[in-house]
Amino acid sequence: MEMRVRFNEVDPLGITWHGHYIRYFEDGRESFGNRYGLTYLDVYNNGLVTPIVSINCNYRKSLTYDERAIVETTFVDHPAAKLLFEYKIFTLKSNELVAEGSSVQVFLDNEHRQLQLSTPAFIENWKRQHLV
Amino acid sequence: MEMRVRFNEVDPLGITWHGHYIRYFEDGRESFGNRYGLTYLDVYNNGLVTPIVSINCNYRKSLTYDERAIVETTFVDHPAAKLLFEYKIFTLKSNELVAEGSSVQVFLDNEHRQLQLSTPAFIENWKRQHLV
Amino acid sequence: MEMRVRFNEVDPLGITWHGHYIRYFEDGRESFGNRYGLTYLDVYNNGLVTPIVSINCNYRKSLTYDERAIVETTFVDHPAAKLLFEYKIFTLKSNELVAEGSSVQVFLDNEHRQLQLSTPAFIENWKRQHLV
Amino acid sequence: MEMRVRFNEVDPLGITWHGHYIRYFEDGRESFGNRYGLTYLDVYNNGLVTPIVSINCNYRKSLTYDERAIVETTFVDHPAAKLLFEYKIFTLKSNELVAEGSSVQVFLDNEHRQLQLSTPAFIENWKRQHLV
Repeated sequence: MEMRVRFNEVDPLGITWHGHYIRYFEDGRESFGNRYGLTYLDVYNNGLVTPIVSINCNYRKSLTYDERAIVETTFVDHPAAKLLFEYKIFTLKSNELVAEGSSVQVFLDNEHRQLQLSTPAFIENWKRQHLV
Repeated sequence: MEMRVRFNEVDPLGITWHGHYIRYFEDGRESFGNRYGLTYLDVYNNGLVTPIVSINCNYRKSLTYDERAIVETTFVDHPAAKLLFEYKIFTLKSNELVAEGSSVQVFLDNEHRQLQLSTPAFIENWKRQHLV
Repeated sequence: MEMRVRFNEVDPLGITWHGHYIRYFEDGRESFGNRYGLTYLDVYNNGLVTPIVSINCNYRKSLTYDERAIVETTFVDHPAAKLLFEYKIFTLKSNELVAEGSSVQVFLDNEHRQLQLSTPAFIENWKRQHLV
Repeated sequence: MEMRVRFNEVDPLGITWHGHYIRYFEDGRESFGNRYGLTYLDVYNNGLVTPIVSINCNYRKSLTYDERAIVETTFVDHPAAKLLFEYKIFTLKSNELVAEGSSVQVFLDNEHRQLQLSTPAFIENWKRQHLV
């Protein structure tokens, strides 16, 4: 997914405020979901919500105003009842690594908000279709 | 309500980004609601939601990082089925006017999202209790 | 400019929080600037900054999660030393008006932050080139 | 530092969007800085800036609209030329752990943006005064 740093995302040091990267990761995850049938709504319509339980980000370089970048989002297969994504952000111009991080999501029943201890059938099906 | 400008609210010009004032107005409105029994939850529990239909802000001065300010929120009585608030933001130090604006909210039934054409009884009661 | 409502922009009522529209207006203005040579950096490199002094927004309909919309940004010519933009947001699907608003910016010298009382030469030139 | 969840921080699931916790951590760090003389401005006036190079957050429970919480910020002493903070967020009402995380900052010269390989004198002095 390609992105561009907005004026309102730049801090007084002239670089993107670090907290916005969590938003860029979510943009990458939503873009991945739109492409591969795993959006919030796809998941919700299958009786699930998938809250984030852990997130991290390591910053290598900074992004400046109006700079273009690529968010690369990777689904990491995992035996536990979890969704694991890894993210890398590269500058569009010189392909330098700006930041990398990951997120972990669990599965809750969307009505009772009950933690699912095994991977839901919908996700197992999705994996069979999309993972090689 | 007293507030303080956060690092992540300051733009590359070293001043608070103008869009954050809409958030400060909401902080003022919520603070007003907490004090006078008119929070989102009070309203919701009376079968209503009150979406914003209009907002404006005029900027007189800028706020810089870590600067303290006061958000003054005024309920403006109005015969129509609307909630009208006015906001003034002053610097804490020198009491200068930084920005002023207003918002208009309408009443919707919280289930059917139907517009209420007359002021709901809950609001009429609230007005009788709180307006002189 | 085409946009899409992000998960993190949707409030507990299931609709885009009203304050994010100020951000969408800025996205529209930046997109306009990129297309017609009037970005923050173009302006800055000509010795100017153009802070917002007034903004307003009227909300007609709501946008829901993942909904696509168009931000239409119009430069409004004005004899005073001001930049005036008008914004309309339409749903992509059915072309319904979601919100409309406007912003006013003034010109400051980018070093001394002094208000410019007449329209700067750079802007007069830009107008001659871009307005019919 | 005590905080309260704002309406505009709550997502369609009715809980605080996970990205806002990075902001709460920064609020905690700024509150710590104000109390112990280690704000962004204190640091800047000593010729330094301290960008974040790593951040992480683990989510245990969710916060709902208007819920009060405590952000507990701890300075962790470290031999390397880094600033390490740990954060814990507890519900005010029942003192349950909501989230915990940490951040790492490095020191740059505020003019040349050059990485400082040893802990700056200002920070060494600060540590002598504030750490037992």
